[in-house]
Amino acid sequence: MARRLDGKRVVVTQASTFMGPAIWEVFSEEGAILVADDRDLTQVDAAQNLIDEAGHVDVLVANLAATLPWSSVTDTTDELWSEMFDVMVHPLHRLVRAAMPQMIERRKGKIIVMGSISARRGMPDRSAYSAARGAQLAYVQAVGVEVAPHNVQVNALAQGFVENPSYFSPDYIETPEFKERLKSVPAGRLATAREDALFVLFLASDESDFFVGQVFPFAGGWAT
Amino acid sequence: MARRLDGKRVVVTQASTFMGPAIWEVFSEEGAILVADDRDLTQVDAAQNLIDEAGHVDVLVANLAATLPWSSVTDTTDELWSEMFDVMVHPLHRLVRAAMPQMIERRKGKIIVMGSISARRGMPDRSAYSAARGAQLAYVQAVGVEVAPHNVQVNALAQGFVENPSYFSPDYIETPEFKERLKSVPAGRLATAREDALFVLFLASDESDFFVGQVFPFAGGWAT
Amino acid sequence: MARRLDGKRVVVTQASTFMGPAIWEVFSEEGAILVADDRDLTQVDAAQNLIDEAGHVDVLVANLAATLPWSSVTDTTDELWSEMFDVMVHPLHRLVRAAMPQMIERRKGKIIVMGSISARRGMPDRSAYSAARGAQLAYVQAVGVEVAPHNVQVNALAQGFVENPSYFSPDYIETPEFKERLKSVPAGRLATAREDALFVLFLASDESDFFVGQVFPFAGGWAT
Amino acid sequence: MARRLDGKRVVVTQASTFMGPAIWEVFSEEGAILVADDRDLTQVDAAQNLIDEAGHVDVLVANLAATLPWSSVTDTTDELWSEMFDVMVHPLHRLVRAAMPQMIERRKGKIIVMGSISARRGMPDRSAYSAARGAQLAYVQAVGVEVAPHNVQVNALAQGFVENPSYFSPDYIETPEFKERLKSVPAGRLATAREDALFVLFLASDESDFFVGQVFPFAGGWAT
Repeated sequence: MARRLDGKRVVVTQASTFMGPAIWEVFSEEGAILVADDRDLTQVDAAQNLIDEAGHVDVLVANLAATLPWSSVTDTTDELWSEMFDVMVHPLHRLVRAAMPQMIERRKGKIIVMGSISARRGMPDRSAYSAARGAQLAYVQAVGVEVAPHNVQVNALAQGFVENPSYFSPDYIETPEFKERLKSVPAGRLATAREDALFVLFLASDESDFFVGQVFPFAGGWAT
Repeated sequence: MARRLDGKRVVVTQASTFMGPAIWEVFSEEGAILVADDRDLTQVDAAQNLIDEAGHVDVLVANLAATLPWSSVTDTTDELWSEMFDVMVHPLHRLVRAAMPQMIERRKGKIIVMGSISARRGMPDRSAYSAARGAQLAYVQAVGVEVAPHNVQVNALAQGFVENPSYFSPDYIETPEFKERLKSVPAGRLATAREDALFVLFLASDESDFFVGQVFPFAGGWAT
Repeated sequence: MARRLDGKRVVVTQASTFMGPAIWEVFSEEGAILVADDRDLTQVDAAQNLIDEAGHVDVLVANLAATLPWSSVTDTTDELWSEMFDVMVHPLHRLVRAAMPQMIERRKGKIIVMGSISARRGMPDRSAYSAARGAQLAYVQAVGVEVAPHNVQVNALAQGFVENPSYFSPDYIETPEFKERLKSVPAGRLATAREDALFVLFLASDESDFFVGQVFPFAGGWAT
Repeated sequence: MARRLDGKRVVVTQASTFMGPAIWEVFSEEGAILVADDRDLTQVDAAQNLIDEAGHVDVLVANLAATLPWSSVTDTTDELWSEMFDVMVHPLHRLVRAAMPQMIERRKGKIIVMGSISARRGMPDRSAYSAARGAQLAYVQAVGVEVAPHNVQVNALAQGFVENPSYFSPDYIETPEFKERLKSVPAGRLATAREDALFVLFLASDESDFFVGQVFPFAGGWAT
């Protein structure tokens, strides 16, 4: 049986962090040719350079995550605020803008944005982070509709409660606070990173061509 | 490589109609053991009998479709109204109620409801149909949250603009009216039935355990 | 200053129960002429008779509530299931169908459905209730789009955590279970019935003509 | 009868543009004491200065609108992109941060963000604008949940198809392109600016205390 990404060239950003490693593992098993990149995408030319170097890109996985701040709205400084947009929002547009022309020309391509459920359901003390994540999702909806007629599919996960050392450290998941939070998740557990990557796989494969500009909550039922 | 449904026992209702044939084809390729049923589920005991006869059920695909009526709200008779609920809503609960105890006992099982996007975005002249479809989706959300702690996953597609002879006949898709409707679909085309079934496959497989009580629009971007 | 419903003829169903009394109070203050009705609307002809007797109807408030059952999905009998639809769903269509022709003819009219947030976010042990409420909301979306060109506006509240003796008895609101539930409501309290009615007032008044087929969560932020 | 905003001190930003004039008119009629401001809020200290000068603020209406660009995603330059966030996103946080402490201290206050439906449903050639509007709405959801326990209410409109000279010029509304767009709006017309302001009035008044962190589509049914 053919593997689900056989021969597809896939760019994954921030490949060593956030969902990068799990995506790398699952996509490799399914035959993808991976360009796993870790450069600092806050630099103005970095996104364009990455795509130029990658050459042919069938699938772009925009995996962009800032350190998650917990900060009340009144304590959220301009610096923290800007960092969220510099890391997660502005590079997203530059990546998409760089990768899109070749996809439109070939009338084939997929972009998957690793977004956050915090843009869909409010949580205290995360206003800057949520705002940046909200920009990502609305961008996906707009671009997804725009490029659908070119047979390019742009979609996003809005994930939450997924195992990853950045947001759920081994220490944190032992705290009463975390256990209390988990009660609000119908699935009653964190997702494994691999489970998350398996859905990204679906969106990266040819099986998902009818989904465009769509945001998929992936949060164990916490928000749907 | 193992197939994605190897050895899973799957019940599909209305197997000869609506999405039944496409699901049968894709699930067979992936190793499922199918109980493809066509009995009239409007009969009070039919759902329970079906599950009793099927025995062990790993996956239930509740594929329930009425003839799609186009009728203004003022012309929608009690008879038409009742038919929608008799065919699509009441059997759904009976099927779920019959299949759930064994799934809860084994702490494993999946139910996928083949719902409609008409319950998510309004369309004229479909009030009865939309209402029945809305009952399905809200039911999935409630039951999904309820049984998630038992490790049973209940989810739904809210599909639209999918090729099927019941809703998009060869004659109809040649009409100017249809072509006008299609302009409102960002993907610019109908989905194939196989594409639809490939997403149902994802939801039926072990890859999707973190999704619970969730409704997935599948409508080419017409509604997301 | 003119009152906001001066001279408008308003039909409110189940006027003595659920949100009926609060709506009556607020609408009276704002100058409405109320037809406050309490007949049993599960009878086939009851809805049509009510509208016939009411005559000219500017605003219909479909206030339909069943006794709220808490029942696991496996314990939900056909009887309980049917009751939800008999009380909350089928009469809704009959009321709308009866009132709509005169509104379309006058190119003016409003229908407000007192729906429930349980159709928007899943809760355990409420599958039958949620399904019926889901039918209401999808119906509102469909009919709202259909009749908007006739300048008739149909909208719904999806309310939750609103004071009312049926769902939140004085005894229940003293229980630890209730206090635990309330923690999940960002507003941290129940709404008063009057607050709820003040939003219904907005939807009944001429101020809201641009809202059509829309569902308004009213749940203190529990779901939005 | 008391007017609905009697004695309330209301700050409206960009008071001469976008929805500013209509809000000014309606709020004045209802007894508000208006601080109608037009300073350039892209300056780092401008928001804080505005609130400092205003003193006591009961209601903040964050009316922030950039010139609406139509630009394909591949043509969207970094300059255009940044402008959207500089005008509509970063000042929003600075305004909220400046006004919030006094509202929390008094345990009373309302913030209404004049957002856009383009953050809820995708449109071609508006990716930068939509992304910035998406940041606004996710921010409202997060902050709304955070400050609700302090009895401060933060909500947003997601408006579209509202008369205003910036987005719907007299010339544009005579074009076939506009008339074609309008077909997709169930209400079949643009809202008047006054209708829009009447809903803002509701959100600014004491009638709406149970709404927190909520986004209200206001788009004639185009998206709900």
